[in-house]
Amino acid sequence: MRKKKVNIIFQPCGKRGQVERGKTILEAAQELGAAIESVCGGKHTCGKCKVRAEKGRLSPLRPEESKFIREEEQKQGYRLACLAKLFGDTLISIPDEARRYQQVIHKEARKISIELNSAIKAYYVELLPPSLLEPLGDFERLSCALANAYGLKNLKIDYPTLQNLPQRLRSAGWKVTVFVWMDREIIDLQPGRFEDFYGIAMDLGTTTVAIYLCNLKNGQVVATGSMMNPQVPYGEDVMSRISYLMMNPEEGLQLMQGRIIKGLNSLIQSTVESVQLSPLDILEMTVVGNTAMHHIFLGIDPQPLGLSPFSPSIHRSLDIKARDLGLKVHPAANVHVLPIEAGFVGADNVGVLIAEAPYQKEEVSLIIDIGTNGELILGNKQRLLSCSCATGPAFEGAHLRFGMRAAPGAIERVRISSTNWEVNYKVIGQEKWKDEGMAEEIQARGICGSGIIEAIAEMLKAGVLEKNGRINGNLSSPRLRKNENGYEFVIAWAKETAIGQDITISTSDVRAVQLGKGALYSGAKIMMKTLGVERLDKVILAGGFGSYVDPERAMVLGMFPDCDLKNVFSVGNAAGDGARMALLNREKRLEAERMARQVEYIELTTHPDFTEEFINAMSIPHLKDDFPYLKSILQEKE
Amino acid sequence: MRKKKVNIIFQPCGKRGQVERGKTILEAAQELGAAIESVCGGKHTCGKCKVRAEKGRLSPLRPEESKFIREEEQKQGYRLACLAKLFGDTLISIPDEARRYQQVIHKEARKISIELNSAIKAYYVELLPPSLLEPLGDFERLSCALANAYGLKNLKIDYPTLQNLPQRLRSAGWKVTVFVWMDREIIDLQPGRFEDFYGIAMDLGTTTVAIYLCNLKNGQVVATGSMMNPQVPYGEDVMSRISYLMMNPEEGLQLMQGRIIKGLNSLIQSTVESVQLSPLDILEMTVVGNTAMHHIFLGIDPQPLGLSPFSPSIHRSLDIKARDLGLKVHPAANVHVLPIEAGFVGADNVGVLIAEAPYQKEEVSLIIDIGTNGELILGNKQRLLSCSCATGPAFEGAHLRFGMRAAPGAIERVRISSTNWEVNYKVIGQEKWKDEGMAEEIQARGICGSGIIEAIAEMLKAGVLEKNGRINGNLSSPRLRKNENGYEFVIAWAKETAIGQDITISTSDVRAVQLGKGALYSGAKIMMKTLGVERLDKVILAGGFGSYVDPERAMVLGMFPDCDLKNVFSVGNAAGDGARMALLNREKRLEAERMARQVEYIELTTHPDFTEEFINAMSIPHLKDDFPYLKSILQEKE
Repeated sequence: MRKKKVNIIFQPCGKRGQVERGKTILEAAQELGAAIESVCGGKHTCGKCKVRAEKGRLSPLRPEESKFIREEEQKQGYRLACLAKLFGDTLISIPDEARRYQQVIHKEARKISIELNSAIKAYYVELLPPSLLEPLGDFERLSCALANAYGLKNLKIDYPTLQNLPQRLRSAGWKVTVFVWMDREIIDLQPGRFEDFYGIAMDLGTTTVAIYLCNLKNGQVVATGSMMNPQVPYGEDVMSRISYLMMNPEEGLQLMQGRIIKGLNSLIQSTVESVQLSPLDILEMTVVGNTAMHHIFLGIDPQPLGLSPFSPSIHRSLDIKARDLGLKVHPAANVHVLPIEAGFVGADNVGVLIAEAPYQKEEVSLIIDIGTNGELILGNKQRLLSCSCATGPAFEGAHLRFGMRAAPGAIERVRISSTNWEVNYKVIGQEKWKDEGMAEEIQARGICGSGIIEAIAEMLKAGVLEKNGRINGNLSSPRLRKNENGYEFVIAWAKETAIGQDITISTSDVRAVQLGKGALYSGAKIMMKTLGVERLDKVILAGGFGSYVDPERAMVLGMFPDCDLKNVFSVGNAAGDGARMALLNREKRLEAERMARQVEYIELTTHPDFTEEFINAMSIPHLKDDFPYLKSILQEKE
Repeated sequence: MRKKKVNIIFQPCGKRGQVERGKTILEAAQELGAAIESVCGGKHTCGKCKVRAEKGRLSPLRPEESKFIREEEQKQGYRLACLAKLFGDTLISIPDEARRYQQVIHKEARKISIELNSAIKAYYVELLPPSLLEPLGDFERLSCALANAYGLKNLKIDYPTLQNLPQRLRSAGWKVTVFVWMDREIIDLQPGRFEDFYGIAMDLGTTTVAIYLCNLKNGQVVATGSMMNPQVPYGEDVMSRISYLMMNPEEGLQLMQGRIIKGLNSLIQSTVESVQLSPLDILEMTVVGNTAMHHIFLGIDPQPLGLSPFSPSIHRSLDIKARDLGLKVHPAANVHVLPIEAGFVGADNVGVLIAEAPYQKEEVSLIIDIGTNGELILGNKQRLLSCSCATGPAFEGAHLRFGMRAAPGAIERVRISSTNWEVNYKVIGQEKWKDEGMAEEIQARGICGSGIIEAIAEMLKAGVLEKNGRINGNLSSPRLRKNENGYEFVIAWAKETAIGQDITISTSDVRAVQLGKGALYSGAKIMMKTLGVERLDKVILAGGFGSYVDPERAMVLGMFPDCDLKNVFSVGNAAGDGARMALLNREKRLEAERMARQVEYIELTTHPDFTEEFINAMSIPHLKDDFPYLKSILQEKE
């Protein structure tokens, strides 16, 4: 029996269409391409997908919805899109807060210094045409010439390239530039002396995808491109996407892999065309991403990653033909997927590892890579440890009352006066701080991860927050309020916002951030104990979030152990840097393979010290130990 | 401007449809799938595509057509399908002679004795499931187990197989049979102990395609399948197909490759299903074929093979994933394409070479492989030569007035009385000889290659043919006739045929066979001179034609030099045997690679002795030299 269809229209985006009766509003939005925020991936726990039904017939309100929808809102027709099912034709209005914005993606290519030694090399040869006296086949003729001129032995040729070999050689008058992969496979030929050839390094983040188009002749980045990961509608974080797959075992994986491949193809096309190149000019690619993104990109079921013991399908690096992945670049191009360390420490962390190369140094570095998850590396040339911290989604703005992603309108910088507790802040997408312009022009929508860190650190320094993590109820400020859930502190007044409500930070928001920073901090402490060090020589903050967070305020908050601030560095997208290095230098691939196996993965959740360390690490700031640098910061401010 | 369409109907097959106005009848037949004989591939030289236009409007008769169509036939509407163009709606009747029949394909698998050592090996392992203490990835877990139990090192895994790895291992409870290719790549997993696994050896002939489905566990042939090469509509021989490509440079190659791949897929499917298997059970394939079939199968332009210096695109063997070729077997299956020796000595001859292995023996063997072309191998363990002979199409029944392929109704055996010159013969598809039944039941349609050899050898022995190749005009027999082109001899009277005409052999038919056998004979003589031998220890007749020809009569005709008849052997489809050996034993692949480069290819056309030897070799029989065995045969009969 065919299911009955209902009509649905989403406002203000205007997306409309028919869907099966009984689907949820969120499912309909996903089908029709209407952008509704869904941080928890439809698990009814984030409340971000609150929409308003203007007209139509929906399933009755569920008790879970009442948690997120006030009685007044209920009367206005507000519902959670992940729960309300369509029983008839419906008109849905998506409020600003629930609309998914294009995240601001700052994944510009950092200057990296690396010797050029790419997997692809170009060789120019001139051949004698075949004759009756020497009628040797085209491939053997070419191989002999490459062996004689360049010492290349035992060459193979990729099959689609072989198909074109006879015409390519003849139309080029037997004078060609030959592109050879890893000194062992001919993958392309061009007539005459051909100068430039290209590759792409990709960083597949849970939320954002960045690509770096590089000239493999000189190592220059000639263009960059980025997009939201098109899998976001299936869940904002890794676990939500794995949950989606568990609920859609039939076609879920194919759907999600298809989305990322299709998205990559259009991103690649627009990026190469922006510099007058063709996708066929791309002869090599490298890929990093966390283990789940790695698996989904490859079309491998990531479900075992979601269940203990969290084992991945493969650790080692992979070389796969672009055509086997459906990537529309040169058909003979190889896609090198970097190795992974463990179920929760993926190829993205290996990218960070080879980009920062702590294993080449005497000094002990702590590298913190915070994307949607937190991964830590600690060590030096003697020994290297890694672990994964369940930071929770607080740093990405989820599970906070006014949290949002780093999108236009998000508060990203906060200063709080220690004298009158007045707040100055800056939102993404505007140059000026609040105090520099008209309050009405700001149109803040929420607070993003780096904004939360700053806000809480500033609250602490200004005395709004006590050292036990509670909001100081004795403060004499209109910004301090008490409601049924306890105290909250107003960061932005309703009139400064686009959402018509005060943007506040509550005790439970502080608690969520404490959980996240506690996970990072306790992870670092257990690693330091394991390594037997008491001081860090260097702290490196990597990843989208890591690049934005203010090192001083992060340390005040206790996100990482004590370290001289002049040795704390933000390195931006180090995972992407690692992908680029592996693209430009084949030795880096061997290094990645070796280090991914050598780094010792520490499973925090089963570590005997974990619970105690985690509880200790929840304090803001953590001053139980001897912390000279942190103390000096706090004293300086007092 | 869109071209106007015309309607066309073919009788008696009933195929009908619309084609563009201005297309030839042959093109329309190819489009609509009506089988019209086209031995020359549309080059207007064979006259085999004579059809009758019952109704309709065609282009005016061309002078080239008059050569093949008598005035009386012209009045009846006969035309050459390759020349007559459709100017309006038309009804075409295809006479029996022009109808293409399913060739009789006898490519049963010969028993071959070979040690089983296939490219695929099966290994059973039981793994410990992952745990938090040992959360190693699935692939590494499996690799370690295979290394510990079987010493397999540095294993890779094919990408599509990796995609299924997590589910396969878990659903099998971590007890699996692993299929490993060449001890280096995991290509499949099956739950538990899995017993049988399969491969296919393919022989891609110009005219026929044969496949052998083998159990790789025990080496048994479990089924065979064969079909006409679906490229036949584009030309019956190699040169016609290359000509077709020259005339259709845009899409010709893709079209022809698509045809053979599609044909193979349905042949594979029906063959495996005949023994209750699935195409997915096929884990490995081997392929032989002449150089042009090899190139077209691989989608490589074979045009350089048609022009001096006839150089191929590649000599060495190839390993290509079935999925890259579009072959619908197991997606990770490898297709091993055997190497080729030279432009005219292809992978089929390499198959013959490794099947007969003359390089392992002291005795000097001459191997004659006559398919649509003739290839010779001469030598022993000291030295090996090969050459290609342009035998012309006479042995396949083309270019002879009543020649036809080895299809039902073709005369294949002939006996002529030395006393009254009466003829007895046998046609393909009937058990009885003519003299054993009713003359009217025979329904002969023409003479195939082996029939021609026998007929001419018998004519010689009976004195119908003089030793200079002329028909004896003094014979007193109603079967001897003279017309404007000289003498002809009637093999079958009109009443015994399905074509309503006497089937005859004329002086020009004898001349065509002389050209063919002269090419083989002179090739053998030049090779014997080069090798420095005067006697052959052994003659091996291979290939479809070689298996049918009567050794004694072939020697009488002078197809090969003198040899003791008890050392002349028919080995059937030795090329297919070679493909099977390479499927069952990987060492044979190395042997093929080595021998294909080691055998010395002799280019006959530029050899200084060729013209003289060729002229000498035209005599029937060739008795200038000292031929004890041939003399004894001829004396015996006198």
